Amino acid sequence: MTRTIAPPHPFDAAVELTPAGDGRFSGHTSPAYANMVGPFGGITAATLLRAAQQHPDRLGDPLSLTVNYAGPIAEGAFEISARPVRTNRSTQHWALELSQDGVVATTATAVFGTRRETWSSTEITRPDVPAVEDVEAGAFPEFIAWSRNYEMRFVAGGIPTTEAVEHPDTVSTLWVRDTPARPLDFAALTALSDVFFPRIFLRRGQYMPAGTVSMTVYFHADAEVLAEQAEDALLGTARAQQIRRGYFDQSAELWGRDGELLATTHQLVYFKD
Amino acid sequence: MTRTIAPPHPFDAAVELTPAGDGRFSGHTSPAYANMVGPFGGITAATLLRAAQQHPDRLGDPLSLTVNYAGPIAEGAFEISARPVRTNRSTQHWALELSQDGVVATTATAVFGTRRETWSSTEITRPDVPAVEDVEAGAFPEFIAWSRNYEMRFVAGGIPTTEAVEHPDTVSTLWVRDTPARPLDFAALTALSDVFFPRIFLRRGQYMPAGTVSMTVYFHADAEVLAEQAEDALLGTARAQQIRRGYFDQSAELWGRDGELLATTHQLVYFKD
Repeated sequence: MTRTIAPPHPFDAAVELTPAGDGRFSGHTSPAYANMVGPFGGITAATLLRAAQQHPDRLGDPLSLTVNYAGPIAEGAFEISARPVRTNRSTQHWALELSQDGVVATTATAVFGTRRETWSSTEITRPDVPAVEDVEAGAFPEFIAWSRNYEMRFVAGGIPTTEAVEHPDTVSTLWVRDTPARPLDFAALTALSDVFFPRIFLRRGQYMPAGTVSMTVYFHADAEVLAEQAEDALLGTARAQQIRRGYFDQSAELWGRDGELLATTHQLVYFKD
Repeated sequence: MTRTIAPPHPFDAAVELTPAGDGRFSGHTSPAYANMVGPFGGITAATLLRAAQQHPDRLGDPLSLTVNYAGPIAEGAFEISARPVRTNRSTQHWALELSQDGVVATTATAVFGTRRETWSSTEITRPDVPAVEDVEAGAFPEFIAWSRNYEMRFVAGGIPTTEAVEHPDTVSTLWVRDTPARPLDFAALTALSDVFFPRIFLRRGQYMPAGTVSMTVYFHADAEVLAEQAEDALLGTARAQQIRRGYFDQSAELWGRDGELLATTHQLVYFKD
């Protein structure tokens, strides 16, 4: 699955923003990251994070991000406004909005901050899985453009096929990385937090209209730890907690190559059966 | 622990807001819900939710809420601005800010919506615990005022005592309800999502400066299911995933009396050791 592509990497092209002054940034949707309707939610989340990262007043690195998918994003240009609502000594709170033609399509809040050395402990266990090279790469249906930018090697809970039946659980575990390969950073990690397809597809063994309503990412790693991951695959694992009356939640973890927990992420998803 | 108190219930007094026009509401901190510094985060979250609920343009019921604790809230008056950023056919997205003297102390986003009947499934299991009447009520240290408004019956992972040592895990499981008793609604459920004291207190067996940075609540129940809970205790269970460099995340579930999963909630917490 090695592809050679001239720079910039498609991911960097997709999240590219041009400063337009006063905390505003201009961007453009990328066909390479298109979903069935509008862009892949992960690329939208990454682009919003980038706006805060590129803001001249930015303090520290991302600690948390919540993105609310308020309405469809049409193919074409968009504008992001990034407002540092409050800056403290070690944390900074952001309000972000993505709009098209003056209509808000996505809102977000982010917390940035600096980190200090403290007592540390990982309280959950990384799934015990075969090495990345021992797991075969799977494929999403061809019509999901964004998925072609990720190499996914499913250990459990792969994409349902057309012959799929109900699955006993909602767990997917996979090795995942950008393809073509790209060094990990906060924006890439944000997008990777949304690669876990809607859990109801797996559970029911079928596709149906579904979309993320709100996604939160907690960043556990700092920039140095992310840089250490280089272009290696991350291990991701996701599951739903409850599916009820048109909505469900799903939670996931992303683990680094040496077993560090890099991010935990949660989302509420809408579906129609 | 039965107390008789004239109406309004202290919770309703604490979250009371006076409409000030144009999506603005005036409120006041309540000494009954004071924490060590400023108010209990749960009461602030509930008050922000109430602003959206009371807004004349409100559509449906809460689906998700994210609250970012940007700075301290001083004892006294505050103002909340509630802006319906986008209203679709079945969902509505809110931007909320709590400020004092023009300085933003808390930001939030919320998604409201209507629900339809669909295929449903609870994918996690409620902890197997003794009945509420078979578990003794515990007590927080006296100086934590807000905790006196909750009856907490810990099955596991109770409040550390001054003699506490390191605990092998970060799990607390408890029966919890408002005291004096109060019928459950979205605002009360929001506040209950924050009753799980910082997991590092349990893990290290000691208190230290700690505070929620960002909290998200996913509401799985509609208003009717909440009303059915009446004044009964909920079963809550919480745990941390990773503690690292001054921050940790914790996740929790709140279960109803007939075993329904009412809410799932996540937060990122700051600490200083």
